[in-house]
Amino acid sequence: MSKVIWHITMSLDGFISGPDDSMDWAFDRDHSRIADETMNEIRAIVGGRRWYEVAQAKFDGIEGVYGGAWNGPVFVVTHNAPKVTTDPRVTFVPDGIGKALAAAKAEAKGGAVAIFGANVAQQSLALGLVDEIVVHIAPVLLGEGVRLFGGPLAKRIELERRAVDYSGETTDLIFRVKR
Amino acid sequence: MSKVIWHITMSLDGFISGPDDSMDWAFDRDHSRIADETMNEIRAIVGGRRWYEVAQAKFDGIEGVYGGAWNGPVFVVTHNAPKVTTDPRVTFVPDGIGKALAAAKAEAKGGAVAIFGANVAQQSLALGLVDEIVVHIAPVLLGEGVRLFGGPLAKRIELERRAVDYSGETTDLIFRVKR
Repeated sequence: MSKVIWHITMSLDGFISGPDDSMDWAFDRDHSRIADETMNEIRAIVGGRRWYEVAQAKFDGIEGVYGGAWNGPVFVVTHNAPKVTTDPRVTFVPDGIGKALAAAKAEAKGGAVAIFGANVAQQSLALGLVDEIVVHIAPVLLGEGVRLFGGPLAKRIELERRAVDYSGETTDLIFRVKR
Repeated sequence: MSKVIWHITMSLDGFISGPDDSMDWAFDRDHSRIADETMNEIRAIVGGRRWYEVAQAKFDGIEGVYGGAWNGPVFVVTHNAPKVTTDPRVTFVPDGIGKALAAAKAEAKGGAVAIFGANVAQQSLALGLVDEIVVHIAPVLLGEGVRLFGGPLAKRIELERRAVDYSGETTDLIFRVKR
């Protein structure tokens, strides 16, 4: 059974991107054991349309995922799929996060599925579809930007810490989502 | 020279209190080495009016500070000091956070000063008056409440991690504020 991991970097004050989708604060940080182990576990990625567009605009598209180390499948949840798909690794899924996760799990063949982007992660959490949160906490307060969590779907969710790593500049935590 | 420490417990998603000022998620957690060491360093506390009122309403006032272990001075920044002060340990400071911190430092006699409450902490950060952030990250997503950081004064602030402790249920981090 594929594990679903929300894999995210955030500022200490809980932003996953800064003003204007800036991510400069999140990069140029050292890699860590947990980051590498998580990357190696993941066999498919599910992202939101907004995540995909920001990736296209700012980070060489999915070429830039995991610093260029990713060449597996990516499922993008969107009601408005682009008419032309230029990358055979990208599948646009029009009918919601549940279907996208199911398709990603089938592709992952027992490996883990990563969720990218605040919106799909919040939907997945609300639906009880997230097994783990792997979070890299960057040593910065941003003050504004896109929040890790919140919005109309947010509800209290209890977590259980499973691992801590501080070998790099970020503080890396693995939490199990309690159900 | 007294060190100024913003000492705070937050949820993983960056809330320092939940809906209706709830703090139940932050208590009943194990104590940790960093929590104890920080408490032992602190010789005076500066809090905001809102922090003070919530403490009065919900936590036996300053009797409840540090789980009852605190019996030092508390400086409350407020433009509307109550007419009757019932606790000789509490001083109301009407003329701003700078004056309150100066009074607390004088009282701390070289020991550390803790800042409690989001509002005064944000003002202090904006004025460059915070030396360290000691944060206890509770294993919960709250989704709503009072944010750690944000609002009109928020600006990007770089931090340097100094210590990590995960002996208890919270993950405890000490950051130096870069200037």
